[in-house]
Amino acid sequence: MCGFDTEKKYTPTVCWKFVPSTLTTLIHFDDIQDAARRIAPIAKRTPVMTSRSFDVQAGLTAFFKCENFQTGGAFKIRGAANTIYSIPEADRPRGVVAYSSGNHAQAVAIAAGSIGVPATLVMPKDAPQSKVEGARARNPRIVFYDRFTEDRVAITQRVADETGAMIVPPFDHPKVIAGAGTLALELLTDVSDLDAIVVQIGGGGMISGCAIAAKHMNPKIRVIGVEPADANDTFLSLAAGKRVEIPPPSTIADGLRAQMPGAMTFPIVQKLVDEIVLVTDDEIRAAVKFMLLRLKIVVEPSGAVPAAAALHQKLPPGLKRVGLVVSGGNLDYEMLAGL
Amino acid sequence: MCGFDTEKKYTPTVCWKFVPSTLTTLIHFDDIQDAARRIAPIAKRTPVMTSRSFDVQAGLTAFFKCENFQTGGAFKIRGAANTIYSIPEADRPRGVVAYSSGNHAQAVAIAAGSIGVPATLVMPKDAPQSKVEGARARNPRIVFYDRFTEDRVAITQRVADETGAMIVPPFDHPKVIAGAGTLALELLTDVSDLDAIVVQIGGGGMISGCAIAAKHMNPKIRVIGVEPADANDTFLSLAAGKRVEIPPPSTIADGLRAQMPGAMTFPIVQKLVDEIVLVTDDEIRAAVKFMLLRLKIVVEPSGAVPAAAALHQKLPPGLKRVGLVVSGGNLDYEMLAGL
Repeated sequence: MCGFDTEKKYTPTVCWKFVPSTLTTLIHFDDIQDAARRIAPIAKRTPVMTSRSFDVQAGLTAFFKCENFQTGGAFKIRGAANTIYSIPEADRPRGVVAYSSGNHAQAVAIAAGSIGVPATLVMPKDAPQSKVEGARARNPRIVFYDRFTEDRVAITQRVADETGAMIVPPFDHPKVIAGAGTLALELLTDVSDLDAIVVQIGGGGMISGCAIAAKHMNPKIRVIGVEPADANDTFLSLAAGKRVEIPPPSTIADGLRAQMPGAMTFPIVQKLVDEIVLVTDDEIRAAVKFMLLRLKIVVEPSGAVPAAAALHQKLPPGLKRVGLVVSGGNLDYEMLAGL
Repeated sequence: MCGFDTEKKYTPTVCWKFVPSTLTTLIHFDDIQDAARRIAPIAKRTPVMTSRSFDVQAGLTAFFKCENFQTGGAFKIRGAANTIYSIPEADRPRGVVAYSSGNHAQAVAIAAGSIGVPATLVMPKDAPQSKVEGARARNPRIVFYDRFTEDRVAITQRVADETGAMIVPPFDHPKVIAGAGTLALELLTDVSDLDAIVVQIGGGGMISGCAIAAKHMNPKIRVIGVEPADANDTFLSLAAGKRVEIPPPSTIADGLRAQMPGAMTFPIVQKLVDEIVLVTDDEIRAAVKFMLLRLKIVVEPSGAVPAAAALHQKLPPGLKRVGLVVSGGNLDYEMLAGL
């Protein structure tokens, strides 16, 4: 039985196990290496930060993979560029279309713009202002929708049907997954002997790519996923052994509000992710504040989720050297003031 | 005649010149190399950041020396540790005493604490809360004073007389200057072919140390100082050819509120600094915001002063590759919300 209680310090939530013999996925380590080469012109090799004060409070040695310093302010450029740069020359004029709460939209706009591909973005009306502005700066066409009443996938499909544009999904696509995996490739290249890599889960694209890279480079590493307590679709799906859909989450971590794991990402998560832990919005807020005031870096709530798990001792005991993904830094001005 | 107008884009303010033949100072490049070795156990080799969006707005290629990530959140640990670690073993039990608006106090507390030397801090009553808290965490004795009615130097001297403690001045001391110079040593080692290094001026300790290191490593480099418009004691002193005292400044850049250049730093500034530019508090605020929202780093107003000069085109024209010192990141929570 997989219970969880976000108040408890650490709740074992291991209901599945990494079984190397059953490992078969569509995406291989080679694809991640190819992605790294493909995206090099636009994606930064982001720095890895450390913090003594964080380590003291978390009781471990943390290595922050700082994707908040990435082009577009988030890791999303990795998957978007890997996908868009792979489009054959002849198909590029038809353009691309993407739906996203913001960081993916911004990344698609940047990657498409960098090689002259027209982009249409389908964004929720309540997306953070900073993300809308960030996307708009690249002059894409933007179509807004209501997150609670409209179906973004249907809207995106309609745009694709009308224009012939290629859909760049936010996570459930081999090129997007392989692109995201490049961040783990860099982290494990830069930092040796990690006991675990801790990755936030929205639709599961980033943790899938990171798990493939990390388990290939170090089969003993533990891959730990973290979800906001009310965006626990992957947690529930793993417990159920199949993809479960949840109501639209309201967590402060707006990038992790996926309602269901991806059809492609879920089997990868089932096979490669060792455990999932959940964090509350208060814990996420505390982590954002800690990183702002002590590490002196701006991290958006979605980006602070692994740090929140570490700071509040939600990670499994016994971990010493831990890689924590800081997925983005697009913190709204209003949210900053609100903290 | 040395006029200035903070509204104008760039006002030439060169009233003195670097004359290598007259260069004689008490502090040499060797002292800075010695300092680098001495402080290595406690000071971080901070990263150098770049930002495409900053470069576009500033019209140059900026290299930010990120001392906001330094131990204690500011460059001050370099000078404090170099001074305190140089105290002979036998004299250490008598302790140290320092006056400071905050970052220096915090650095003295950290450096003294790291080798078991007792520390007394003389801090202004209106020092930012984050700096007082940061200092307090190291358990020093703290003596508060009123910046507008009391003489901090006299208070510090009284403590020294009563306890036998050694005074660690915030800037006017060879070890403090040499310690600060290590940041330029690192920057010029990490980034080649800089046209200029831009350094904020409080009492002039940092720019003195940086100028000695930079001019030694690259005699052609320009050293540009930046002061807040109402804390222009060095600007006025250079124009007058002697140290001039100004009334207590009220600039938002609380670390740069010195009223007069140091007796030791001023001759170094006269000889090695090529020009001084002034920035308004609004320009400083805009730079803090830009770095928060675009670079995703937390910089305190004093730390953003060189960036403010670059962003608002106050630097001399023709500079291409420019090192900008980000001296600290101890931004108050209240100030953060206020922005």
